[in-house]
Amino acid sequence: MPFRHTLQLRVRYNECDAQNVVFNANYLAYFDIAVTELWRAALGSYQAMVAGGIDVVVAEATVRYRSPARFDDLLDIEIAVARLGTTSMQTAYRVERDGELLAEGEVVHVFVSVANGRPSGKTPIPDWVREALEEEPAPAR
Amino acid sequence: MPFRHTLQLRVRYNECDAQNVVFNANYLAYFDIAVTELWRAALGSYQAMVAGGIDVVVAEATVRYRSPARFDDLLDIEIAVARLGTTSMQTAYRVERDGELLAEGEVVHVFVSVANGRPSGKTPIPDWVREALEEEPAPAR
Amino acid sequence: MPFRHTLQLRVRYNECDAQNVVFNANYLAYFDIAVTELWRAALGSYQAMVAGGIDVVVAEATVRYRSPARFDDLLDIEIAVARLGTTSMQTAYRVERDGELLAEGEVVHVFVSVANGRPSGKTPIPDWVREALEEEPAPAR
Amino acid sequence: MPFRHTLQLRVRYNECDAQNVVFNANYLAYFDIAVTELWRAALGSYQAMVAGGIDVVVAEATVRYRSPARFDDLLDIEIAVARLGTTSMQTAYRVERDGELLAEGEVVHVFVSVANGRPSGKTPIPDWVREALEEEPAPAR
Repeated sequence: MPFRHTLQLRVRYNECDAQNVVFNANYLAYFDIAVTELWRAALGSYQAMVAGGIDVVVAEATVRYRSPARFDDLLDIEIAVARLGTTSMQTAYRVERDGELLAEGEVVHVFVSVANGRPSGKTPIPDWVREALEEEPAPAR
Repeated sequence: MPFRHTLQLRVRYNECDAQNVVFNANYLAYFDIAVTELWRAALGSYQAMVAGGIDVVVAEATVRYRSPARFDDLLDIEIAVARLGTTSMQTAYRVERDGELLAEGEVVHVFVSVANGRPSGKTPIPDWVREALEEEPAPAR
Repeated sequence: MPFRHTLQLRVRYNECDAQNVVFNANYLAYFDIAVTELWRAALGSYQAMVAGGIDVVVAEATVRYRSPARFDDLLDIEIAVARLGTTSMQTAYRVERDGELLAEGEVVHVFVSVANGRPSGKTPIPDWVREALEEEPAPAR
Repeated sequence: MPFRHTLQLRVRYNECDAQNVVFNANYLAYFDIAVTELWRAALGSYQAMVAGGIDVVVAEATVRYRSPARFDDLLDIEIAVARLGTTSMQTAYRVERDGELLAEGEVVHVFVSVANGRPSGKTPIPDWVREALEEEPAPAR
């Protein structure tokens, strides 16, 4: 079973636009928060991965908007590892409010090595990262 | 020839993240600025379209990241109408720096009617909008 | 004792800039989230206040930055009602990490009446709002 | 006469909130863009200053909101050096639309030395920076 994680977010006032709904780009920001929580659940933290010499950069992102989220909505964001390639990971996202699907999407991250604290060239996913992402996560958070 | 428009943007400091590159979600914000300029070039302004009872909502967005943009970079953002359906428009985007492609993507907008100043149900693209989007734009900016 | 409320926030990756610290403007966004929680604690919700015909607009804001907050930090944001005037409210903020003060500031909100769903002219703070803001909040959250 | 610079910005859709006005925190983002242009006018660029071993961090910021800016407004942002201390600079800002004052404010920056590409301890303003900030700028933009 793929690694999977869910978090809850409350929509902030400044994430909504003049149409009174969450601005479209902010869903990618929500996805990014979910990735941070994925690293925390799988590896302790994103910083732990970077300290281990591995970072990620975003190669592609898609969002399909089903129904608008609004100010103060409590959202459930689910992230799941959809595919682990040699040097890349595809994650899939679902944004729900009370079980209603509001948006879904996918992001492709490419793994890179870290040199002098900055992302450097593409690198195969090391085993310690791959194993953590293939393991079934502990049920409780 | 499809309607096409190019604008220039300078990358702001707060659009960059701790990796020192433009944060992935901000490309959708750039695409949105290009849409505003599309309406200005085609219809006078976005507000003129809304005053005419027509608005748009985003149904789907994709970005493919080729090479990072950085603080203070001067970017050329090109938007082109790729497809006009009955009720929807697909636009295609290219983000370049000195002729180098940094990112590209597509956005699908659905046309909706405006009721009480808010987006309402899906509506066929009215002729006055469709014709403006099919016309070749004037050469000067 | 003035009305007082504390909430916890985790710093998001895209809230940090290329200096690897929370971008200065984002503290005002944090203060705004605290105001939303103030309305929730005092009146049920911000939306309840607006439904009652009362809204607020920001008249002045100040932030003093003591020490930088960084990605993934867990922040405690405290908001307290510092002064209730006839038509305005001053709130004071403290941003802490593990008891260390990172930033503090003040915001002045002016109360306005709501007409056709939009903020309209300045209005005296109605009693039902004033009383809620003067009451000592319940100890538990 | 103090160093002074004006730039023009167009309000973006996602800078407006559900009240249909520019969100309060975004004025600090506008001020920051003006600071970038100040460095460009005075020193060639912000990056040139950092390459010279000098960076700045924000110590305090204040905004007074006079009248709301709205989507697509064309704003004139004026920045002026108000005070040069030993290690700090106070800048003053005016945001106008067609000559009408919408907001004003002040920001205090502290100069720091750069070590390993990161801001380090407080430092006196070096002469090459101080002289550039005291010089009357060239009239043309």
